[in-house]
Amino acid sequence: MNGAESLVRTLVDSGVEVCFTNPGTSEMHFVAALDRVDGMRCVLGLFEGVVTGAADGYGRMAGKPASTLLHLGPGLGNGLANLHNAKKANTPIVNIVGQHATYHIQYDAPLNSDIVGIARPVSGWVKQSPSSRTVALDGALSVAAAMEPPGQIATLILPADTAWEDCDGPVAPVEPLKHGIPSKDAVVAAAKALKEAKRGMLMVSGAGLQERGLRAAGRIAAATGAELVTETFYSRMRRGAGLVDIAKLPYFAEDVVETMKGVDVLVTAGAKPPVAFFAYPGKPSWLTPDDCRIQQLAAVEQDVTVGLEALADELDAPAEPVGVQAAGRPELPTGDLSAGSAGNTVAALLPENAIVSDESATSGLASYILMAGAEPFDHLQLTGGSIGQGIPLATGAAVACPDRKVVCLHGDGGAMYTVQALWTQARENLDVVNVIFANRSYAILNIELMRVGAENPGPKALSMLDLSNPDLDWVHLAQGMGVEASRSVTAEEFNDQFADAVKSKGPRLIEVVI
Amino acid sequence: MNGAESLVRTLVDSGVEVCFTNPGTSEMHFVAALDRVDGMRCVLGLFEGVVTGAADGYGRMAGKPASTLLHLGPGLGNGLANLHNAKKANTPIVNIVGQHATYHIQYDAPLNSDIVGIARPVSGWVKQSPSSRTVALDGALSVAAAMEPPGQIATLILPADTAWEDCDGPVAPVEPLKHGIPSKDAVVAAAKALKEAKRGMLMVSGAGLQERGLRAAGRIAAATGAELVTETFYSRMRRGAGLVDIAKLPYFAEDVVETMKGVDVLVTAGAKPPVAFFAYPGKPSWLTPDDCRIQQLAAVEQDVTVGLEALADELDAPAEPVGVQAAGRPELPTGDLSAGSAGNTVAALLPENAIVSDESATSGLASYILMAGAEPFDHLQLTGGSIGQGIPLATGAAVACPDRKVVCLHGDGGAMYTVQALWTQARENLDVVNVIFANRSYAILNIELMRVGAENPGPKALSMLDLSNPDLDWVHLAQGMGVEASRSVTAEEFNDQFADAVKSKGPRLIEVVI
Repeated sequence: MNGAESLVRTLVDSGVEVCFTNPGTSEMHFVAALDRVDGMRCVLGLFEGVVTGAADGYGRMAGKPASTLLHLGPGLGNGLANLHNAKKANTPIVNIVGQHATYHIQYDAPLNSDIVGIARPVSGWVKQSPSSRTVALDGALSVAAAMEPPGQIATLILPADTAWEDCDGPVAPVEPLKHGIPSKDAVVAAAKALKEAKRGMLMVSGAGLQERGLRAAGRIAAATGAELVTETFYSRMRRGAGLVDIAKLPYFAEDVVETMKGVDVLVTAGAKPPVAFFAYPGKPSWLTPDDCRIQQLAAVEQDVTVGLEALADELDAPAEPVGVQAAGRPELPTGDLSAGSAGNTVAALLPENAIVSDESATSGLASYILMAGAEPFDHLQLTGGSIGQGIPLATGAAVACPDRKVVCLHGDGGAMYTVQALWTQARENLDVVNVIFANRSYAILNIELMRVGAENPGPKALSMLDLSNPDLDWVHLAQGMGVEASRSVTAEEFNDQFADAVKSKGPRLIEVVI
Repeated sequence: MNGAESLVRTLVDSGVEVCFTNPGTSEMHFVAALDRVDGMRCVLGLFEGVVTGAADGYGRMAGKPASTLLHLGPGLGNGLANLHNAKKANTPIVNIVGQHATYHIQYDAPLNSDIVGIARPVSGWVKQSPSSRTVALDGALSVAAAMEPPGQIATLILPADTAWEDCDGPVAPVEPLKHGIPSKDAVVAAAKALKEAKRGMLMVSGAGLQERGLRAAGRIAAATGAELVTETFYSRMRRGAGLVDIAKLPYFAEDVVETMKGVDVLVTAGAKPPVAFFAYPGKPSWLTPDDCRIQQLAAVEQDVTVGLEALADELDAPAEPVGVQAAGRPELPTGDLSAGSAGNTVAALLPENAIVSDESATSGLASYILMAGAEPFDHLQLTGGSIGQGIPLATGAAVACPDRKVVCLHGDGGAMYTVQALWTQARENLDVVNVIFANRSYAILNIELMRVGAENPGPKALSMLDLSNPDLDWVHLAQGMGVEASRSVTAEEFNDQFADAVKSKGPRLIEVVI
């Protein structure tokens, strides 16, 4: 058995079932080994940002890592932005990067680069395996490292000769570190702080945003009157009717400051106190009021859900939470199509137990608010701010959850970065409806240009934020990659097209011209 | 004046005329400054790999740097692969990357990352400017660093507050280091070695591949009988009728070994002795015969042309070179369309003084050979092996040389990585004909899979190398980005479509189905 096969067998034995890949010559033995081992599904992406974004979507939904397979340093580079987003989402990923044969690196062939150097900024764990006899154990270690709470990117660099040389076979899985449990002291201190608060706030994120954690948070609110908030950009939240609804903090720093004015106690559970997304001249970066006491209930590396339940119990909180979302769907809109009306449509027709991959940016407010009363669904966001995550994320989520409808809400500017993901959706026949909000602009930048105090922007500056001239034609782009597509220019058209897409199976794209 | 304006003014004063950009919030002051300063053309790319690849194409043709403007670490990550290619091409680029305000970095906001760490593997020079009062000088230094022979990537990291705070204004350009001249000793030793050789070989690359260097190499061959070769993947070569034709070394290692068998003297001029592109089990990485004497005439950092001319003079070489390419064009083909027949068409119809951006991969052999007898043109190759360079490279070359026709020859697999470059061609109305060889496969990997000794590949492995299911529709993709496009399925169709494209102005795409 060669090293590649020992690695694939070890990965499968360790629970890795999917490999998202864009391989090259140095990865050919790994690719060949995939046919000799049962239990590993291979999904090809035509660009590495698709691969890493899909691995993120898979990991968020499956709660365990997929592996990637990338071609040397440049392939890793192409995947870096979505690895950055995955890092900020604490998603477990086994990130496998091919490398030249160990003895070949010294010759500095054209594809040679400092792979460890490129990997380190996005990885919690990096190792270049030195030998075919070590790759199986390194593979097992990489899975355990990826699963180390709260989840991280474990980059395993695989020199070609470690894949093709003989070895001793696979190794047994390595048990990952377990979540720590918040200490009794932390629970008691949080309870005391919230009870003493004039205006208490409980900020929940990470794994605390699933049904149990939300319920406990709602009980804490019932017991203490604490306001419940979460991060502006969380990795995954269970939302919908019957669930405790937690508001996310606003995007703009001054709105966060306004939201937190008068908060004298902030208890965090799997969340960090809010900071400004960007710095702006004369505006604060740190957004918690200066005199606010910050009490950590649970670090993101700890079991946030257990922490929240312990806090609710410590407070003798009522069994029933407050803040439970009532059921309710908006009416289907008519007339002009806008981001708002499209949000109405999405909220009115969202299928039960959908997965929403949301990179709708400036177009997303209406859908975000109005979806709250739908049947429960999972809501995934852009965590690291690097646009171009949403379509790959939807792609990976659909691979993880083949029986659920995935709805991807995306701004047109961001969607272009990793547009190649549509082809993977077509090839794998994934059940994804991609809704592209075509405002033909980096709309957020038109706002930010003013906010940073850049005075009197001229035509050159404005043209750098403008995506018209020429307009992108999303129907053509999708059809070019084998995805059925349509364009909506009225609310009625979008109602019909979205309704048809959610009741069909397979990938679809709808360009919403706003 | 704020720091951003001082930087833009300094860049313009230092000869930087073009900024390829995909900016974000942290770069808004730089963007706003572009309207307050004359002399800087801004070109938007919808993905950063387009931006960096275009900067490479511009730098190769203009012989001086364009600047980029990228958004933080993830934006740099997206541009990394084509920066890798540019690094291997020794292209001068001023690579400007926005950063959070200096005081904001500590808060680890979602877009925070280790930008220096990401930049270092592709950069010859990296600096994060500490203050608005230093950015102008750092800008001047970055231009000088980019121009340091033979050319390199100078990454200037620009915290947002250094752009928006006041400063003392622009600074004068900094003179870059000059090329060194090969020493008399090196010239004499090379002459002696070639005269003593039983089978001498002169390997020329870098700036030696322009008309003067080629001519001197042909004179050296006339004097000594030395065979002339160049690297498999060079940055830029002047080719065509009346020029000395230098063969590039083959791609596969065993073919290079065969080519060099019996060579007892290898003189290098701006080139490194050949190594295998990849390692293969049981095959050599170092390809020069063991008993071959290697004599360096000129390092790539030195003036290769002056070195070649000095060597020709030292040898009292005849005034007329050998190896001058005769004029000649192939006939237009008829019947079935193939990579070979398409190469005939391109060679038959290539406009005078064209620029050919060649990432045709397995489809490129015929066009490469047959173009040799056309009127002189510039031939640009994929230098770093990271596919997805060709369309951006063509885009940047067209910006640098608006009066010349650019022909981009591209494999379909590679073209998908940076397909967004077509939109920039449309927006800027660049005079580029993109020829996509649609073999619907990573064809090279089907060859490499066998060559690396991966036995009996199964359906999973083969499917990872296959781009059908679904077929990409390049006409739709191009039209989706505003580029006029057509599909050829016979030789006659391609003859007509290519002829029409080369005599029209503006961007075109032709899908060659092979």
